[in-house]
Amino acid sequence: MKQLRLTAFDMNCVGHIQQGLWTHPRDRSADYTSLDHWVGLAKLLERGLFDGLFLADILGVYDVFGAAPDAAIRHAVQVPVNDPLLLVPAMAHATTHLGFGVTANLSYEPPYLFARRMSTLDHLTRGRIGWNIVTGYLDSAARAMGLSHQVAHDDRYDVADDYMQAVYKLWEGSWADDAVRADRATGRYADPSRVRAVHHRGPYFQLDGIHLSEPSPQRTPLLYQAGSSARGRRFAGQHAECVFLNGGPRPAVAAHVAAIRAEAVRAGRGASDVQAHVGISVVVAETETLAQAKLADYRRHASPEAALVHASASMGIDLAAYGMDDPIEAVPTQAIASNLAAMAQQGMTKRKLLDRMVLGSRQVPITGTASQVADALLAWSAEADVDGFILSRMVTPECFEDFIELVVPELQRRGAYKTEYAPGTLRRKLFGTDQLPGTHPAAEVRFG
Amino acid sequence: MKQLRLTAFDMNCVGHIQQGLWTHPRDRSADYTSLDHWVGLAKLLERGLFDGLFLADILGVYDVFGAAPDAAIRHAVQVPVNDPLLLVPAMAHATTHLGFGVTANLSYEPPYLFARRMSTLDHLTRGRIGWNIVTGYLDSAARAMGLSHQVAHDDRYDVADDYMQAVYKLWEGSWADDAVRADRATGRYADPSRVRAVHHRGPYFQLDGIHLSEPSPQRTPLLYQAGSSARGRRFAGQHAECVFLNGGPRPAVAAHVAAIRAEAVRAGRGASDVQAHVGISVVVAETETLAQAKLADYRRHASPEAALVHASASMGIDLAAYGMDDPIEAVPTQAIASNLAAMAQQGMTKRKLLDRMVLGSRQVPITGTASQVADALLAWSAEADVDGFILSRMVTPECFEDFIELVVPELQRRGAYKTEYAPGTLRRKLFGTDQLPGTHPAAEVRFG
Repeated sequence: MKQLRLTAFDMNCVGHIQQGLWTHPRDRSADYTSLDHWVGLAKLLERGLFDGLFLADILGVYDVFGAAPDAAIRHAVQVPVNDPLLLVPAMAHATTHLGFGVTANLSYEPPYLFARRMSTLDHLTRGRIGWNIVTGYLDSAARAMGLSHQVAHDDRYDVADDYMQAVYKLWEGSWADDAVRADRATGRYADPSRVRAVHHRGPYFQLDGIHLSEPSPQRTPLLYQAGSSARGRRFAGQHAECVFLNGGPRPAVAAHVAAIRAEAVRAGRGASDVQAHVGISVVVAETETLAQAKLADYRRHASPEAALVHASASMGIDLAAYGMDDPIEAVPTQAIASNLAAMAQQGMTKRKLLDRMVLGSRQVPITGTASQVADALLAWSAEADVDGFILSRMVTPECFEDFIELVVPELQRRGAYKTEYAPGTLRRKLFGTDQLPGTHPAAEVRFG
Repeated sequence: MKQLRLTAFDMNCVGHIQQGLWTHPRDRSADYTSLDHWVGLAKLLERGLFDGLFLADILGVYDVFGAAPDAAIRHAVQVPVNDPLLLVPAMAHATTHLGFGVTANLSYEPPYLFARRMSTLDHLTRGRIGWNIVTGYLDSAARAMGLSHQVAHDDRYDVADDYMQAVYKLWEGSWADDAVRADRATGRYADPSRVRAVHHRGPYFQLDGIHLSEPSPQRTPLLYQAGSSARGRRFAGQHAECVFLNGGPRPAVAAHVAAIRAEAVRAGRGASDVQAHVGISVVVAETETLAQAKLADYRRHASPEAALVHASASMGIDLAAYGMDDPIEAVPTQAIASNLAAMAQQGMTKRKLLDRMVLGSRQVPITGTASQVADALLAWSAEADVDGFILSRMVTPECFEDFIELVVPELQRRGAYKTEYAPGTLRRKLFGTDQLPGTHPAAEVRFG
């Protein structure tokens, strides 16, 4: 039976996806500046044999709702938000197997420095680091970086393609596998004939220099991506190893998964060289009644306004400007076309949207017993060809504790979940190999 | 009696200052990719009541010697070198009091992102982070960043002045002290009227946006600086809280310390608002004979060629091109004028230089018993008005173990070293206050 993959979804901030739940008396989201908080989470997830912890990030603020950032600041909707990379070393030191997927926006991180950061993390974690490749979508981030506005959507992917070439050359092409000798007897640490400078002359990036880091266990970090536009899917097919998808009707998700696998094949890779992971929220308890009661308890702490702040930014629509029963007419942009089509199809209004955002998010929770949750996950796996799930933070850490206590054993009983970790790097655990396969474009720039 | 300050000096690489010592059988420098290695060091230093661990960094490679990076790569002279910031979280989680000074080159780090990184570290360490402000001096780094060459020396300080204004506004001026309420009852995390966007329009940097991080314990990290040129001293007088100096004749260092204090006063700050810390290497043992034997043992593993590689890059002189007894004539550049003047005055040749670099560095070790080392340190303190010392890595970690076992108790017996940590942030431990005083230029941009 296919083994499901599980990843926890969190963020170095107070309000992540399910807005308002930080106000629940048992929620510890507001402890996000505490290393103990994160180390505790990492140990918990490793106890539950989770494959990874995925850390979202955003640069800029959500200022679409009411045309101002005030409501985002008031409700802590992904602001304040601290750097995700800096959480990893402490969590890595407290664990052995858990992987870490960190989000970094390539539009603003110089490739020479970013490549070293990821190599450093790959060394320190012994090959447990992944990178969620994002190009950003907030004009407020561009302004904070000193630009008048951001690059257009599809152009950002052209920038991203060039960026990937530059960092592949640093990670894969600068130091040969046998460059480092570390020979105390002769005093030779590395063989300079096996280290070469990268000379990259792309349309957006130029660099000349050797990579500052020696080869790390995975070299290129495990590559995550979440773009859903046609251009984003093409990028994912070329580069990504794990793609994160939003939920939705299973046939639509199945079509999305098939499209990404087809893009991978078109790029000369295997269909299973890209894993599809679907974002879910789960409220689970010993009985259905208890699960519904827990959902109701959580719901009392969800914030409708904060949910609208987040949805407004995601869709590019100022929902503060709508009456409750107005049809949501969009200012269409390419980034949000698929969202809008879905909303138009459903005749969505603000009232209906709020009714659906039961926990302060458009991600509707799967609620029930462990058996019911396992049924739902296995149906996803069978009907939409997904490889795993990314479990959103709700009331934390109890949402993860509940899942590990109840759902993981149920999946194990059904033979759909591992009972111990496989050895080795994150990529080896997911794909059986420490480094990218020869069919991946990064392999083309390898040394020798 | 004046309490000396002690900081350990290390780097996320194999060969730091004393080149070649990684080949010593007891040396663990080559474990630099291991979190256990760094966590062990941090715990050791905290046992020794060290104020801080200072992490150097360099972007680019040392390619002056022989006009190529080959010798640097062969001997691991600060290459490979991993990111220093990513070591801090794991070490911070394992300690309570130890401070961390991290080097970051402002020429290449976008201020909006860098400010968030440092705020994140200040949160996660509970106010134990410092920043060593450097502008870089290697053309190879500029080329790796896609530039044809770096900005001229004094211009780099103009860039730095503008950069400091930008990050001060983010750290000190974006969120008021009372902005964060974290009130679960009302659901209000922060008060938007107490958070404001920074609008910076400098000659080199422009940005518009709120700081992404809420106020951290120190806000601005403790500011370290090490520039020794006239322009560098002026910058230090304006901005720095701790200045790191190379050793040398005590009267020269005393004059240097006095000049920096005068610059601070000229900038409207107090003379003691800047602490002077002198870089030292120490070989200590129970008897003078044993100390000399240890020095001789270490010396057998030092690398003269690697020492020349490092010295060539520091001075901008290709020492590979000199005969052993040629007078060292320089291609003078502003960055290295003071070094060259000293060398000319001493009639320096490569042979004499090699004789002095007993442990693979121009930093000559203080060698002797604990009492002799303490005598030397106290003489420095009395004659050159220095506040503390920054102790270089030699054979690690035993160089720090020896110092903590032998020298620290001796300094304590003489009343010159604390017997327990003061509470609070790094800045509070060194200056009695969590945040910068009102006379510092950062205070001018505070919110309200």
